[in-house]
Amino acid sequence: MSTLPSFPVGDLPAMWLRDNCPCAGCRDPRSGQKLFQIGALPPGLRVGSAADAAGEAAPAVEVVWEPDGHRSSYPLAWLEAVRPGRTGHGDLRTEAGKELWTAREVAGRLPEADWEEYLGEPGIRARMLESVLRLGFMLLRGVPGREGQVLEVAETFGYVRETNYGKLFDVRVEPDPNNLAFTSAAITPHTDNPYRDPVPTLQLLHCLVNDAAGGDSGLVDGFAAAALLRREDPEAFDVLTRTPVPFVFRDAGTELRADRPLIGTDPLGRVREVRFNNRSIGTLRLAADELEAFYAAYRTFAELLLRPELQLDLRLAPGDCLVFDNTRLLHARTAFAQDGARHLQGCYADLDGLASTLAVLRRADTLEPLAELFAGAVSAEYLGEPVTMAQHMLQAGALAQAAGAPPHLVAAALLHDVGHVRGDVVTGRDLMTGNDNRHSHTGADLLGRWFGPEVTEPVRLHVAAKRYLCAVEPGYHDRLSDASKYTLEVQGGVMTPVQAAEFAGLPGAADAVAVRRWDEEAKDPDAATPPFEHFLPLLTALMRG
Amino acid sequence: MSTLPSFPVGDLPAMWLRDNCPCAGCRDPRSGQKLFQIGALPPGLRVGSAADAAGEAAPAVEVVWEPDGHRSSYPLAWLEAVRPGRTGHGDLRTEAGKELWTAREVAGRLPEADWEEYLGEPGIRARMLESVLRLGFMLLRGVPGREGQVLEVAETFGYVRETNYGKLFDVRVEPDPNNLAFTSAAITPHTDNPYRDPVPTLQLLHCLVNDAAGGDSGLVDGFAAAALLRREDPEAFDVLTRTPVPFVFRDAGTELRADRPLIGTDPLGRVREVRFNNRSIGTLRLAADELEAFYAAYRTFAELLLRPELQLDLRLAPGDCLVFDNTRLLHARTAFAQDGARHLQGCYADLDGLASTLAVLRRADTLEPLAELFAGAVSAEYLGEPVTMAQHMLQAGALAQAAGAPPHLVAAALLHDVGHVRGDVVTGRDLMTGNDNRHSHTGADLLGRWFGPEVTEPVRLHVAAKRYLCAVEPGYHDRLSDASKYTLEVQGGVMTPVQAAEFAGLPGAADAVAVRRWDEEAKDPDAATPPFEHFLPLLTALMRG
Repeated sequence: MSTLPSFPVGDLPAMWLRDNCPCAGCRDPRSGQKLFQIGALPPGLRVGSAADAAGEAAPAVEVVWEPDGHRSSYPLAWLEAVRPGRTGHGDLRTEAGKELWTAREVAGRLPEADWEEYLGEPGIRARMLESVLRLGFMLLRGVPGREGQVLEVAETFGYVRETNYGKLFDVRVEPDPNNLAFTSAAITPHTDNPYRDPVPTLQLLHCLVNDAAGGDSGLVDGFAAAALLRREDPEAFDVLTRTPVPFVFRDAGTELRADRPLIGTDPLGRVREVRFNNRSIGTLRLAADELEAFYAAYRTFAELLLRPELQLDLRLAPGDCLVFDNTRLLHARTAFAQDGARHLQGCYADLDGLASTLAVLRRADTLEPLAELFAGAVSAEYLGEPVTMAQHMLQAGALAQAAGAPPHLVAAALLHDVGHVRGDVVTGRDLMTGNDNRHSHTGADLLGRWFGPEVTEPVRLHVAAKRYLCAVEPGYHDRLSDASKYTLEVQGGVMTPVQAAEFAGLPGAADAVAVRRWDEEAKDPDAATPPFEHFLPLLTALMRG
Repeated sequence: MSTLPSFPVGDLPAMWLRDNCPCAGCRDPRSGQKLFQIGALPPGLRVGSAADAAGEAAPAVEVVWEPDGHRSSYPLAWLEAVRPGRTGHGDLRTEAGKELWTAREVAGRLPEADWEEYLGEPGIRARMLESVLRLGFMLLRGVPGREGQVLEVAETFGYVRETNYGKLFDVRVEPDPNNLAFTSAAITPHTDNPYRDPVPTLQLLHCLVNDAAGGDSGLVDGFAAAALLRREDPEAFDVLTRTPVPFVFRDAGTELRADRPLIGTDPLGRVREVRFNNRSIGTLRLAADELEAFYAAYRTFAELLLRPELQLDLRLAPGDCLVFDNTRLLHARTAFAQDGARHLQGCYADLDGLASTLAVLRRADTLEPLAELFAGAVSAEYLGEPVTMAQHMLQAGALAQAAGAPPHLVAAALLHDVGHVRGDVVTGRDLMTGNDNRHSHTGADLLGRWFGPEVTEPVRLHVAAKRYLCAVEPGYHDRLSDASKYTLEVQGGVMTPVQAAEFAGLPGAADAVAVRRWDEEAKDPDAATPPFEHFLPLLTALMRG
């Protein structure tokens, strides 16, 4: 390791770099969780030596640590991506992760979709969920007008959050209301449940009936309003971010109080939460000058929130379901005539579950090239064996799964020969004409785009595993098919004892041997194999962040 | 209004004072919600005149506002309690609302109770829930060892929060764990689900089996640890409060990320949340010097959290259920031998629901004097009528309820004669000897301890209502009982037309007339009446905060 590595790892903060060591001793290969305590790293930790990783792996820098001798191998692409000073996406829950809007900017391009299409098409579902994160809302049309349906809408992306209003609440005129929501009165822009902590971060409103004159809905982007306040009256903005406000609610069975500012910011001062509800602000207890300053700022913000250009007006029709970010968007409704019927059903849920559902949906998208590769390999010949290339790989994956192998090995078995395939051209034909196509390395490098070494390394070593088994396992060579005996020679032949010992010491060698055995078995023309889609959940779970 | 009022209301911040106007036009008497927009108050709002409220009400200051002429009446006791500059309890979720502890300080006095006693005795239940808020945990013993029981424990104080681990999760060794919790490995002190936002604020762990060698539990007060860090290394504390940390989790169906500091503070800098989990910290993206500073502070805090004097050691036995604040307490477990069985079931819930349950439990406590008053009145004669004083009042309340009256009127009817009662002595006897005991005022003043004017004023005016009805309603006087005709004269006789017009203009007059009619009816010796406890939920709901 005397030449300079491709990335100056010695200049990086040592604890940070070590904390990100991807080896199987530092991170559980299955859960990805860190296996060591930060305090267990030795004081004076530093890079002892660093060099580009030997061999033909995806470019990586290997570090030997002082004083403990631990070895870490960092993919070069990862080092480039996260190098200090380059800011990451940061906290997408703050204004930095949002597209702020005024009414005019969204009126012509509402994030809306038909319920059936939302359910049936993952691409549409992903676009809608992304709208909730980016714009703060989505509007589903044609949602069946059944009572309780709103809970099913919530379950498409997360978990219902039960509150004192129930799992589900009816928004209609009630005889003895515990909340003005359940009257026909106009309600100005507000967020819900400000007296809850944690506040429900998503609200759903599903319209069942709206025959009343009035009762129109409005949405205001509270982050845009807060940003406007910061520009127009920075002192007022500052007061509202630093004054905890008591929000209170009480009825027969409930007594809630939360002390939170009207505008919540993250440690970097970015807007992260708006909590605004004039109905439930309790008595502030502050010095007189602080009260004067707070009330002046509160009035300024309240007036700003009522500017018509900020409010998107909507009229919910039966079958519409509005889903919005209750930490950001304020909602309002106009008064309505009591002689017309108006009935919405609502529930609460949380943003974290929605963001997770979206992220998992997107994983499947990014695996599209692999799905296409399998589709192409359906008609591709497999090295003179009586199965197609797709059948061979799907059989190997199914055999691993049937054997109870962990997900990373099922994936490695399923994907071990992807280096042979380019569309419907199988590069393995070269191999049969005496040229090693080095398909195990090509495949491993290709897979590195999605998966970590627990998947790529057994793939990389599965050809070497054949050479190894021929060396160490009596009778193994004899059992190989003729085609396999031929390619063995092209690929380097039986290992010498020294080569075999070196191989056995490599990370992933035992896994590669396991993959090799399923590889050998997976040549049955009569076996039923699951389609590639069967493995998608397993593969998406293994994908790197 | 020329003399100075008892409280200098003109010196108070005008917007603040007006925002707290308790009149029925400013606050919905039923829900307590504010009915006006802060921006709707006129600019230049100021106290026009102020004086002690006329009449014999509980001491109050009446304000006439400029420029809009609105009138507000503020109880003197309220003004004294919330006067600016006197700090309120503030945010009880911060360290200011907690009792911080080290292991030694709680080891001898664990907040623990038997499950049956917790269920059966509201006082014990309140004490335990209060422990969760103050100390961060409670330990219930003897909880039935049934699977799913932990959900029932959560439902005694709140709502279960579902996560990717389910509504309920099993903590035991699993074959293909997505989390180290589901192995037999030791786990150092941590909070759960740091990658969720909102993070579940409560965790429950119910022990079903613990036969394994090892597998002991530990709790660390994260607020105490953070306070210690602030004392010992203020710079490290500061770095940890201002650095958002990416917490990440992914498996087959889940991909979560939350960017939050390890130590969260409120706008006043007080510790409000600790989020600590070495397993799920992702890659920080900062400048190199910030990374150095963060890792130094992170290591310092991590080491501090491992100090033995901070960790309370517990061994959960079958039937134990630990409930703890996941925004404050870190929990840990020692490794255990895989040949012994260990099985916990857990779930998440939230602190706001628990605090609400506790507040409602406490309301019933504070109504104890009224319950005692009714118990005394069971044997007390009612002014020569064929019912006891308790029967009379309970009947009046039941009649109001049967008539569909709103809760504040049911309460007023139920409580209208409390001014007659002192223990089992009924001061009404004086009235029958020709001395007005002014029981309506005494009663209203007594009730002011718990209830607002919507309850107290109809009680105060219910005697005047009799004088009024005799003046304006033909035949009313004739229908009065003889005793009632006698007391009418002692109480001032039939109103003059001018007195009647003045009465009709008073707030609460119409309600007082309604109470009066139930009062007249409630003299049936054969009527079945509900016990006082029947009205407790209704009364507690009406109590002022």
